Amino acid sequence: MAGRGQGEASAGVGRVFFSPRSVAVIGASRQEGAVGHEIVKNLLKCGYPGKIFPVNPKAKKILDLKCYPSVSKIEGDVDLGVVAVPARIVPHVAEEAGEKGVKGLIVISSGFKEVGLEGARRERELLDICRRYGMRLLGPNCLGLINTSTPINASFAPQMPRKGGIAFASQSGALCTAILDWAAREGVGFSNLISLGNMADMDETDFMEILAEDPATKVILIYVEGIKDGRKFLEVSPKVSSVKPVVILKSGTSDAGAKAAASHTGSIAGSRVAYETAFKKCRVLQARTIEELFNLGIAFASQPLPQGRNVSIITNAGGPSIVATDACSRYGLNMAWLSPKTVEKLRSGLPEEASWTNPIDVLGDAPAERYRFALEAVFSDEFVDSVIVILTPQAMTEPLETAKHIVDLNSKFPKIPVFTVFMGGERIEEAVNLLKDAGIPVYSNPEDAASTIAGVVRYVDLLNQRVEEDVPTFDVDREAVRRIIDRVKRERRASLLSVEARQIVKAYGIRVPESELAQNVRQAVNAARRIGYPVALKVVSPQILHKTDVGGVKLNLRSDREVAMAFNEILRNANLLMPEARIFGVEVQKMVPAGREMIVGMNRDVQFGPLIMFGLGGIYVNILRDVSFRLAPLSRQEAYEMVTETKAYALLRGIRGEPSADMDSVIETLLRVSQLAADFEEISEIDINPLFVYERGDGALALDVKVTIT
Amino acid sequence: MAGRGQGEASAGVGRVFFSPRSVAVIGASRQEGAVGHEIVKNLLKCGYPGKIFPVNPKAKKILDLKCYPSVSKIEGDVDLGVVAVPARIVPHVAEEAGEKGVKGLIVISSGFKEVGLEGARRERELLDICRRYGMRLLGPNCLGLINTSTPINASFAPQMPRKGGIAFASQSGALCTAILDWAAREGVGFSNLISLGNMADMDETDFMEILAEDPATKVILIYVEGIKDGRKFLEVSPKVSSVKPVVILKSGTSDAGAKAAASHTGSIAGSRVAYETAFKKCRVLQARTIEELFNLGIAFASQPLPQGRNVSIITNAGGPSIVATDACSRYGLNMAWLSPKTVEKLRSGLPEEASWTNPIDVLGDAPAERYRFALEAVFSDEFVDSVIVILTPQAMTEPLETAKHIVDLNSKFPKIPVFTVFMGGERIEEAVNLLKDAGIPVYSNPEDAASTIAGVVRYVDLLNQRVEEDVPTFDVDREAVRRIIDRVKRERRASLLSVEARQIVKAYGIRVPESELAQNVRQAVNAARRIGYPVALKVVSPQILHKTDVGGVKLNLRSDREVAMAFNEILRNANLLMPEARIFGVEVQKMVPAGREMIVGMNRDVQFGPLIMFGLGGIYVNILRDVSFRLAPLSRQEAYEMVTETKAYALLRGIRGEPSADMDSVIETLLRVSQLAADFEEISEIDINPLFVYERGDGALALDVKVTIT
Repeated sequence: MAGRGQGEASAGVGRVFFSPRSVAVIGASRQEGAVGHEIVKNLLKCGYPGKIFPVNPKAKKILDLKCYPSVSKIEGDVDLGVVAVPARIVPHVAEEAGEKGVKGLIVISSGFKEVGLEGARRERELLDICRRYGMRLLGPNCLGLINTSTPINASFAPQMPRKGGIAFASQSGALCTAILDWAAREGVGFSNLISLGNMADMDETDFMEILAEDPATKVILIYVEGIKDGRKFLEVSPKVSSVKPVVILKSGTSDAGAKAAASHTGSIAGSRVAYETAFKKCRVLQARTIEELFNLGIAFASQPLPQGRNVSIITNAGGPSIVATDACSRYGLNMAWLSPKTVEKLRSGLPEEASWTNPIDVLGDAPAERYRFALEAVFSDEFVDSVIVILTPQAMTEPLETAKHIVDLNSKFPKIPVFTVFMGGERIEEAVNLLKDAGIPVYSNPEDAASTIAGVVRYVDLLNQRVEEDVPTFDVDREAVRRIIDRVKRERRASLLSVEARQIVKAYGIRVPESELAQNVRQAVNAARRIGYPVALKVVSPQILHKTDVGGVKLNLRSDREVAMAFNEILRNANLLMPEARIFGVEVQKMVPAGREMIVGMNRDVQFGPLIMFGLGGIYVNILRDVSFRLAPLSRQEAYEMVTETKAYALLRGIRGEPSADMDSVIETLLRVSQLAADFEEISEIDINPLFVYERGDGALALDVKVTIT
Repeated sequence: MAGRGQGEASAGVGRVFFSPRSVAVIGASRQEGAVGHEIVKNLLKCGYPGKIFPVNPKAKKILDLKCYPSVSKIEGDVDLGVVAVPARIVPHVAEEAGEKGVKGLIVISSGFKEVGLEGARRERELLDICRRYGMRLLGPNCLGLINTSTPINASFAPQMPRKGGIAFASQSGALCTAILDWAAREGVGFSNLISLGNMADMDETDFMEILAEDPATKVILIYVEGIKDGRKFLEVSPKVSSVKPVVILKSGTSDAGAKAAASHTGSIAGSRVAYETAFKKCRVLQARTIEELFNLGIAFASQPLPQGRNVSIITNAGGPSIVATDACSRYGLNMAWLSPKTVEKLRSGLPEEASWTNPIDVLGDAPAERYRFALEAVFSDEFVDSVIVILTPQAMTEPLETAKHIVDLNSKFPKIPVFTVFMGGERIEEAVNLLKDAGIPVYSNPEDAASTIAGVVRYVDLLNQRVEEDVPTFDVDREAVRRIIDRVKRERRASLLSVEARQIVKAYGIRVPESELAQNVRQAVNAARRIGYPVALKVVSPQILHKTDVGGVKLNLRSDREVAMAFNEILRNANLLMPEARIFGVEVQKMVPAGREMIVGMNRDVQFGPLIMFGLGGIYVNILRDVSFRLAPLSRQEAYEMVTETKAYALLRGIRGEPSADMDSVIETLLRVSQLAADFEEISEIDINPLFVYERGDGALALDVKVTIT
């Protein structure tokens, strides 16, 4: 229901912004070069079919269009308002637009959040006005937007791109301008271009949702310094990415970059790991570079999705094809094993010195016809998922004719994507332009082709992933946890005592060593007898975090006498070294056999919520960082993947004939921690280290547990 | 002495090939398009100042030059012969050239090693003829070479590049052609271009040596599928790389790529790790992609070396500068902390909204003058090692004027390299061309700039590395090892018994647990008494590799009786499970306390010799692959680096207040293994796993040792 309503709403918003029936340019100007002039000019030049209303109290006509003194004076409805007046007047004209019943506003003007506190206040005011009138808002501090189907150029960008399948939404306006200029030269087409600006109201996720419904958009590219609303992103983006590929370049991933981003737009970059995990969960591809972002955009927009990772290479030069083979291998692609029929066909038709296995070398003297022959053979091979054609300009090479054959065959074999590597300059220029015009990706070196195919295959893998959405729910003692947390809150503590932390995970069905709190020697001895020797004694105090350092831990105690002595010594040590510490008592704990040491953790990300962590535990956790992450709530499949993708998995399976460990209990621990994190928003961190994992059937034990609340 | 002689010889060879006084084109042709015609034409067209002698028995004149029926008929000396006759005639004309006294031959013709056995035989014959006459040989199966200073174009490549600082030697002829075409469009200049072909005689290292002496060459770029002579490379390349940067793209690094390379040129790709280690040792940069190879070439050829890794970014757009900051961080560069003076200057001269800390944002409306102002401030800052200038074409942007300022300042501040990122298409084209013409690197995205600077800084780091060449020599018992190896050889065994392996490392001063070989119960008990309880018993048999699996190991024996029982049980088990195994006896070994488990290994690489390995040992070695490599012989510094660059180092230093381990003994073990590998060429593998490392002062112990000989 909610989903459907949202979809309809987003379709409505999409129409308002991308194909409005009428546009008012508020702050239109007669002066060539002024933003308010360029917008009107762009609307006219692009062939926008709706009505254009320039608004300017001082002008009668702008670019031959009748000009209005204010929005309220316009006859007829106004769908979209584009605002290019000084920042301080923006709230006023927004109010007027709201009164008039304008449905969407694009605020081009800068002077808002990006310039400091006063600007932020003004942005808040603007947003409030829009909310009051039910107007949606793009910007402020943006370039505007372009849609090539309507067509509409509601921006002050000087170029209108050609039609194409790529939608690009960018937090950086300058990047839009640069890409437009680049795209004009490269002949790259766009369906939409959106400069997101400060994202006071509509953000990258809103536009993603709109673009999912846009038939002209084949792929959605996004540049952001930060996702604005993590929860919304987690809900919306998986739906979008199951319809069409979404590729995001998220900058500010380094500490230095995050600092630069914060000072630039006030974005909070957030945790790199949380972002990566969220993108993966939502089947959103993450581009590492601007080049990769657009390489993927071009590939998705123009070529069919490959069925798998088997690549066939056709080349007229050995060196570059070896480089390509290396790159395919580096990026996780396979060299396709050609079928015997294909090999036979190639062998019979190619010169003797040619290589008729993959990579197929048609030799340096290959004319276009020989390329065509090899290409046809390969396209017909059921074991080939995608094709790389490499061409270097040698004496007999026919770049243009070869390119024509490639274009022809690409349309004859519409299920197999083709990627071309034409290496050189002038001698291949015409051919390269032909390929680009036909929508065939062209690279100047083999590595870019391989890396792009790898990105495309990554999306195919994500789509094919059997997504088990089913999140198991265990029967747990929620009340017990509620009571502990409430008590800790009352006492205004953030870190829980280890006794409390253990009680919490125990209430969620995670096994912990048997233990009791003792406040004097007699209680300690009685507890030890009940639990059974040997036992360990550990001091309990909110002030003492590193118990061992203050002599607060005694292990392997085997008799009443040893327990009594240890109890007294622990108190003595604590009083001596931490005289201010509040001692709650001493914990008497069952000594347990050592197991394989793992770590299970949870860290609540401000943007995306509980981030569950799994990895090799004990002393290795810090030096090896062999860890995996997923966002809660976890499905059983996700928990399983978390374990198998670490190196610790080998240790759990058993090395050198060792028996395998109790994998099920590891997975269950992860699931129960996930449930705990989902149930209690105030828990900000959980850390089970080590989790002792025993042999199959013997379960696992959370030895040390830390819990922090906010 | 040898070095000097070699240097002179290489200078002589360099002259013969790069500035010969006369060239004979053997197989010159009147027919336009024929290789033998194009070579003569290229020699004429490039303005080669020496004499050109076309040789063709059927022609009187070729391109207006007098033609000779054979080399022997040429009046006057011939320095260089360029051969373009069918493969089967090549030996004959080589013989004639030798008779005539020709000093160098370039054999363009194909039909040699690359076409199979008969071709390989013919190549051998050709090489023998050249050797007999003292003629050096480039090729066969190559494109020829170009030198832009002489100038000479002794190739059939259709283009002559402009002059520049890059020398490029390539095993792939097609890559040469492609690069020439690309360079013509991009305006990239070259000093030399060498198509290496089959490298029957002269290889990449010979040319590297020649190019080291060439004043026009600022940087040497090499593409190879394999280094031809590992030892020669190890000797020559460090000398060259200390004079000028050497960047190598070595393909065939993946299994699939190696297979493709083998079928292409018959190159043996060799071990990827050995190559990486050798390149590092020789201070040779390894490019991972073709693009990186030439990006580095352009940077080294045109810009000064930076003093360090502190980068300053000047930009007119926030987004791209955040992307650049991320990329700098990813590639290990620092964002320079500008001096207070610079910050003050920027603050006073830039608009209020600008960012005057690094990255410096001169704002979207920055005219060229504002860029210049910021650039001058930054260039004058002593804390800035290199500068990235980012420009996106916005409304007020002046790309061409900005470029002019950059060119001007680059020459005014000749010590600080500058790298530009001009993003866009037509609007920046003129500016980009201006920058390229002025030799300033231009990239279309920030990541390429950062990755290139990182490569340049890597070279600076390698140059600055205090290279301690001193290889320590320990007093060892070489004779003992000789005797063991000789005995094993006599017995035609490849794997040594663990007793023997331990004896070998012990003879080289590496501590091993005390042990004795016992052939009956009485000997075993006596040995145990001498060694001292507790002991372990292990079966000794060349056929039994996995002793534990056959019940051939008994640990922690504490009395005569336990030893006697264990001895009998081991023999019983071995007879039962491995009835064919030849049992040499049972080893009685001192039980030793557990230490931190490391691994030390040696593997002899066919190309580069003994490759020493260090890493985390025990069960972790296989799953974590936390290992480092160096080529023997090791200096103390290298051994130290091997340890510190692994994660195991943290474990040795001590985690969580643990005492630190005996690092010195680890380093000494590495050095002694290195000496052992250097002394005995027949040892192909050494594997010490685990090496127990104790606390500082307590040394280390090689618990299990495996040695293999060839």
